[in-house]
Amino acid sequence: MKIKSLGLDNIRSVEWKEETESIQLIDQRLIPFRVTFVQLPTVKDVCTAIKEMFVRGAPAIGATAAYGMVLAVKEANNQARQDKREHFDTLFSNILSTRPTAIDLSNFAREIYNVALRTDFSFDEALKAATFLVDKMVEECRSIGNHSCDHIKDGDSILTHCNAGPLATIDYGTALAPLFKAKEDGKGIIVYVDETRPRLQGAKITAWELEQAEINHKIIPDSAAAFLMSKGKINKVILGADRCLKDGTISNKIGTLSVAVNANYFDVPFYSSFPWSTIDLDSESVEDFKIEYRDEKEVKYVTSYEEEMLIANPKSNALNPAFDITPPELITGYFSPNGVLSLNELQSQIIRLEKK
Amino acid sequence: MKIKSLGLDNIRSVEWKEETESIQLIDQRLIPFRVTFVQLPTVKDVCTAIKEMFVRGAPAIGATAAYGMVLAVKEANNQARQDKREHFDTLFSNILSTRPTAIDLSNFAREIYNVALRTDFSFDEALKAATFLVDKMVEECRSIGNHSCDHIKDGDSILTHCNAGPLATIDYGTALAPLFKAKEDGKGIIVYVDETRPRLQGAKITAWELEQAEINHKIIPDSAAAFLMSKGKINKVILGADRCLKDGTISNKIGTLSVAVNANYFDVPFYSSFPWSTIDLDSESVEDFKIEYRDEKEVKYVTSYEEEMLIANPKSNALNPAFDITPPELITGYFSPNGVLSLNELQSQIIRLEKK
Repeated sequence: MKIKSLGLDNIRSVEWKEETESIQLIDQRLIPFRVTFVQLPTVKDVCTAIKEMFVRGAPAIGATAAYGMVLAVKEANNQARQDKREHFDTLFSNILSTRPTAIDLSNFAREIYNVALRTDFSFDEALKAATFLVDKMVEECRSIGNHSCDHIKDGDSILTHCNAGPLATIDYGTALAPLFKAKEDGKGIIVYVDETRPRLQGAKITAWELEQAEINHKIIPDSAAAFLMSKGKINKVILGADRCLKDGTISNKIGTLSVAVNANYFDVPFYSSFPWSTIDLDSESVEDFKIEYRDEKEVKYVTSYEEEMLIANPKSNALNPAFDITPPELITGYFSPNGVLSLNELQSQIIRLEKK
Repeated sequence: MKIKSLGLDNIRSVEWKEETESIQLIDQRLIPFRVTFVQLPTVKDVCTAIKEMFVRGAPAIGATAAYGMVLAVKEANNQARQDKREHFDTLFSNILSTRPTAIDLSNFAREIYNVALRTDFSFDEALKAATFLVDKMVEECRSIGNHSCDHIKDGDSILTHCNAGPLATIDYGTALAPLFKAKEDGKGIIVYVDETRPRLQGAKITAWELEQAEINHKIIPDSAAAFLMSKGKINKVILGADRCLKDGTISNKIGTLSVAVNANYFDVPFYSSFPWSTIDLDSESVEDFKIEYRDEKEVKYVTSYEEEMLIANPKSNALNPAFDITPPELITGYFSPNGVLSLNELQSQIIRLEKK
């Protein structure tokens, strides 16, 4: 992971640990205040870690789910023969229901599920398949960086929203990958970091990752992005996606739609960056797409390390949609492992993925 | 002030106190956690209260500045004859420089300044003039409510940003005035309250005022407004203004522009509501308009009652523009003391104001 100064450059934000047969991940809730590793030896721990957002970011959730399914194979094998399948199905469905939006989660979990059924619950085969998926995703993110960094010019000022960096994606990042590459190539850029209410992944995680990479950046309130665009201070928007539908619609962290509408109004190119696993090949219509509403406490309270603080009228209610939906007409291009794609090119690629 | 349940219905958020010859105001920084009155017996106290945002909201700042100039007259009268004018000019300029955006501040301060010069520093005349200005503004806000409440329909779901209620405007509110009136008239409405980062005036003050008025409301992260509009959940935007230029451009709390661009994209009518004192009759060009940048601490820390909490990567910098600028082409109409005006009607009204 490209977090050099903390000696984290040889680890991933989500990893399989052979010796303990468990998943090790960085508790993202504590970033930037503390780097704490958590071990997940059971499927129950995996579900808690995803639900409670120890781990977030569609690719990182996908990796956790893939390894989580390896643990599910192990736990199924501990059951009596006749209960194995039923128990495995329950664990699979528990993992699937942790969070609804990141399609990587169900894509990866389903793949390991199928491997397990095909190999009569072989732990080794499941682990091999999970490792393959995760490694492939890491490589795809590296490719995103390598292929799309030509789009980043010396002097660019780039807005990003939420976090699509190493922590969210295990190693290189999706939206941040080309920025790290641009920095390595000696390009001077400035990144405006939407703080990303309510959970502040921008102010906490993206800012921390950019600081570690020594990339010039400034945190802004989400609502200030339009103003900076109106003043010509932002010349590109690059952010991730939690799911990309077949028509090019993306679902991403709440606030993405607002950024896209403003970018469109102020003629600022708007890019979404993700690996192939973020594409929802089963998607038919955006109308079917259910938005995750999270606890109103996330809006009414903020947290810092282990404290929390009330920042709203206590007797008022809050509404907390976690994601929104951005239509393809607001998206200039897609940063992909094959380079920057237009909507047509993305759709051709989707047809190729469907044939596999 | 329409804050009934706390016994605040007979007081104003900013008042002149005869007995102590001082300004009394509610410390808005502590709302909703505590209702605390602060006395300002000197111009220095007035400047601190405006700068440190004990008082905020363009009309409330205007009232504080008007009464502050009364204190300036008093303090000038305590000087030797030959130093009086110079001292008065210094106090005037100290008040003017507290905050740059709310034009009510300079409009009101300048008016009392002129009265003082015309009346050879008569304290009684200055106080009479200040009281007249403040009473007139309170009446204008009441008129905004009465005239524009026909625009609020039973079943409306209205987005507001920041705070333009009784605390910001002394008594009735500007953006909130028609909502209070609609409630009194028995109309069922829901108000979506942008929390309004970084200082959270929406989550803290507007939500508190709406709760006191028993108006159905929900706090949302600023970035969620676009999503709610895209889902047809918002059918009107009503917010205040800190300054309205002669061409109908408004400057208002950061995030207003983003809301306006989204409202335009999703075909939601967008209204700005303010008394006449918010109009900048000297404005020539939006290009001259300087935006106030406040301390980055407001973004990196949040406060609750008397504590503060770090919510961002400590080694990152933040950018904190306090206001943005919304052009007239994004504004559907202006809620004014004379009713809801189109841009043309507003400009005719401005010509009438200029002739006075």
